[in-house]
Amino acid sequence: MIEYRNHRVAILGGGSVGSQVAHLLISQGEELAARAGAGLEVVGIAVRNLDAKRDTDLPADLFTTDAEALILGADIVVELIGGIEPARTYILQALNSGADVITANKAVLATHGPELFEAAEQVGAQLYYEAAVGGAIPIIRPLRDSLAGDRVSRILGIVNGTTNFILDRMDTEGDSLEDALAEATRLGYAEADPTADVEGYDAAQKAAILASLAFHTTVPLGAVYREGMTSVTHEQVVAARKAGYVVKLLAICERVTDADGLEGVAARVHPALVPLGHPLAAVHGANNAVFVEAEAAGSLMFYGAGAGGIQTASAVLGDLVSAARRHVAGGPGVAESTHANLPVLPMSSVTTRYQITLTVLDEPGVLATIATMFSDRGVSVEGVSQSVRDGGDNERPTATLVIITHEASESALAATVEDLSSTSVVSAVVSVLRVEGL
Amino acid sequence: MIEYRNHRVAILGGGSVGSQVAHLLISQGEELAARAGAGLEVVGIAVRNLDAKRDTDLPADLFTTDAEALILGADIVVELIGGIEPARTYILQALNSGADVITANKAVLATHGPELFEAAEQVGAQLYYEAAVGGAIPIIRPLRDSLAGDRVSRILGIVNGTTNFILDRMDTEGDSLEDALAEATRLGYAEADPTADVEGYDAAQKAAILASLAFHTTVPLGAVYREGMTSVTHEQVVAARKAGYVVKLLAICERVTDADGLEGVAARVHPALVPLGHPLAAVHGANNAVFVEAEAAGSLMFYGAGAGGIQTASAVLGDLVSAARRHVAGGPGVAESTHANLPVLPMSSVTTRYQITLTVLDEPGVLATIATMFSDRGVSVEGVSQSVRDGGDNERPTATLVIITHEASESALAATVEDLSSTSVVSAVVSVLRVEGL
Repeated sequence: MIEYRNHRVAILGGGSVGSQVAHLLISQGEELAARAGAGLEVVGIAVRNLDAKRDTDLPADLFTTDAEALILGADIVVELIGGIEPARTYILQALNSGADVITANKAVLATHGPELFEAAEQVGAQLYYEAAVGGAIPIIRPLRDSLAGDRVSRILGIVNGTTNFILDRMDTEGDSLEDALAEATRLGYAEADPTADVEGYDAAQKAAILASLAFHTTVPLGAVYREGMTSVTHEQVVAARKAGYVVKLLAICERVTDADGLEGVAARVHPALVPLGHPLAAVHGANNAVFVEAEAAGSLMFYGAGAGGIQTASAVLGDLVSAARRHVAGGPGVAESTHANLPVLPMSSVTTRYQITLTVLDEPGVLATIATMFSDRGVSVEGVSQSVRDGGDNERPTATLVIITHEASESALAATVEDLSSTSVVSAVVSVLRVEGL
Repeated sequence: MIEYRNHRVAILGGGSVGSQVAHLLISQGEELAARAGAGLEVVGIAVRNLDAKRDTDLPADLFTTDAEALILGADIVVELIGGIEPARTYILQALNSGADVITANKAVLATHGPELFEAAEQVGAQLYYEAAVGGAIPIIRPLRDSLAGDRVSRILGIVNGTTNFILDRMDTEGDSLEDALAEATRLGYAEADPTADVEGYDAAQKAAILASLAFHTTVPLGAVYREGMTSVTHEQVVAARKAGYVVKLLAICERVTDADGLEGVAARVHPALVPLGHPLAAVHGANNAVFVEAEAAGSLMFYGAGAGGIQTASAVLGDLVSAARRHVAGGPGVAESTHANLPVLPMSSVTTRYQITLTVLDEPGVLATIATMFSDRGVSVEGVSQSVRDGGDNERPTATLVIITHEASESALAATVEDLSSTSVVSAVVSVLRVEGL
C-alpha cells in the first residue's frame, strides 16, 4: 500500500477548464480531501506561453512551460490540452511514469485509445475520461461499472450540443439552418469554424469512444459512418414534426448481424427522425443525452448540459476523486476491457427504418407502382400517408407521399431510391431520412 | 494483494431477483469473468424453505437453509431478502467476516445505513447498493463517484414506479385514482397492499438514501417528511394539465437555509406540480427518473425502468463486477462519506412554491381581499388566473381562482390557507399543491 500523503496533481493546459479545475481544487480542497481520503495538491499548470492573458487569479508560480518536468513529479496528470499532439505524448509519458491520467480529450481517445489503454495496463495505472463525452453527464462510469454485468444492445446519443441547439431552433423557432447556426455562434455554442460540429466529426469521435466501451471492443474512428447535418432543411424539420417526429443528429452504436449472419458492432452518426414520444425528442437546446438499451436493465437515459467549461471541470473533479481513492486503496487500475473483441461492421451491415418523402403524380395506380418498387427491392413498407393534390398543374396534378419503411438495409434502400428517381410517376424524391428510436 | 482465484458469491434470497442473478452469473460466467478480471462462482442460495416452488431450473444443490454457514464461506454476499431482519443481521455477519456485501434492500439501508457502513469501514469491506434506488438506473455510483468533485444542491426524484404509473394514467387516460390503482394491480405494478407505494413510504426510504449520499450527511428516515398521493383527485390532475403542469409524486432532497440562517439539508416526499417542459414531466408509466442539480455540472437526469426483477438483477451484477475488480486490485473499500455532517432540517425549514385553487364569490373587490390575505402572511403571489363565473347561483355567482405563489414557507402558507378558509368571499379551498422544478 502506498504511503498516505497529498496527491500531486499536474494540470496540462491553462484554458478555461484547466483554470476552473485548479480553482476548485484549491477552494474546495478540504471537502475534496474528505471525500477522496487524501489531499489533492495542484503542483503546476503547464502552458505554452507564460505571458498569455488568463482570466484567473491563480498563483503565478503554478504556471510553467516545462510540461515534461511537471509530469514526472506528479501522481495524477490532468490533460486538458486537446487535439492529438502533444497530448498523446504527454499522456504516454505520464502513464509510463506510473501516474494516473485524467483527460477530456475525445480526439486522442478516439484515434489512439488502444495505445493509451495498453500503456496504462502495462504499469497498472488508470486512464479516466468521464469528461470526454457529454460534459458532466456521468456516462463513461455507468457504462464501465454500473452496466458491467449487463449486455448493452444499442446506444442512441445526442452528444453534440451545438447541432442539437441548431436543430432545436429550427424545430421550435422555425429558423433556417443558417439563422440557427448564426444564433449558435452569437451565443458561443458554435465555434468560428463549425465544421467539426455540423459535419459530425465531434459526434463520430464520441461514438467511437462509447462503442468501444459499451461493447468491450476496439472501434476505430475510421469505422464510424459519418454524415453531418448541413443538408437538413427547414422544410424537413417542419414536415417531420407534422408526421410526429423531430430531427436529431444521433450517434448510434449497436450490435448488428450482417447479411451473412456475422455478429458484430457498428457505429454511425447522421441526422435521424426521432418519434415525439421518445425521451430523446425532449432534449432541447444545447443539452446532451445518451439513451442506452441493455438486455436486463432495459432502456436508460442520461441527460444533462453538454461540455461547457464548468461542466467539464465537474467531470474532471469526479475523476480526480476516483483516482485519489484508488491510490489510497492501492493496487492496479482496472484495465480497459476489449475482451469481447467483436468484429466492427460497416454501414452496409446496418438496417434501420426510413422515411421517404416523394412528390408523385396524383393519378390512379401510382401508389401501386411505387409500392411494387419497394417490394421488388425487398423493402417492406410500414405505412404511407398521402396528401391531396398539392402541386403540379391541372394536366398533371401532384401529391406528396410520405412512406415509412420497416427495417431495411442501406443498400436495398439506396436501390429503391434509385428506382424511384428514374420512374416517370415520381416528380421528385423530396427527402430520405432514417428513423430511430421506434 | 490477495490471491487470484474465483470469487465465491453467496446469494441470500431465492426469489425472482436472486434466481435471475444466479442464472446470469452461471450463463454469462465467462464474459463476466473477463470484465471483472476474476471468476464469480455462485456457491449457494440461502432460502427459508427448500420445498418452496421456484420458477427456475437452477441446480437443486445450490439451495440451502443455512444462511450463516453460506455467509462464512463467501467473498461476496448478495442480500436479496428485503425487510429489516434477518437482512440486517446477515449483512453485519458478512461484513464482519470481511466479505463485500451487495444489497437491493432500501428498507435496511434507510433505517440502519450508518451501522452497516460503519461495520464495512471497520474491516475495509465495501457495501454496494446500486439496486436499492431506481432499479437498473445508475444513480448511486454517479452520485458517489462521478459527482464526487461537485456540490449537489438538489435532487428531484420520481423513485416509485407504481405511483408514477397511477398518476400518469390519471393524466393521459383520464382514469380516477381508484381505476388507475386497479389497473396497476392488474398489471402487477402494485402489490395487493399498495400502502408502501401510495403513502410514500417506499419513496421516503429512497429519499433518505439519496440525501445521505448526495450531501455526505446521515439523513435518518424519520427526518424525511412524507405525504402520500391518495388525496390526488382526477380533477386536480385535469386542472394541473390545463395550467401547464403534471402531478408527480416526488422525492426531494435539497440544501436549505432555515429562518435563522442555519444551513442544512431537508428531504421530503409529496405530490407536486411539475411544469410540462421539465424533463421529469416526460417520465411516463412505471418509469423512474432522478433529476440532480449540482453547482458545476448543472442539471442532470438519470432515467429508466424502475425496479423490476430483471432490472434489479442488472444493477446487482454491475455491483458484483465492481466488487470483484476491487478484490483483484486489493486494498480496502471506500468508506461511505458523512464528513459534511450537515444538520438535517425539518419540513418547516423548507420553502417552495404553491398553487392554490379557490372557489370565490364573483364580486368586485374579492381579488383585492384575497391578495391582501396573502401579503399579510408574507406570501408573495406570482400569478393569478381567474375563470369567468362558473358556479354559485344568480344571487351569489362564483368563479375559480388559481394562484401561484413565489417561494413561501410551509407555515406561512398554512396560515394563509387558514385565513382563506374562514373568509366569506371564499366558498371553498379546492386544492393546495406544491410546485417543483420551476
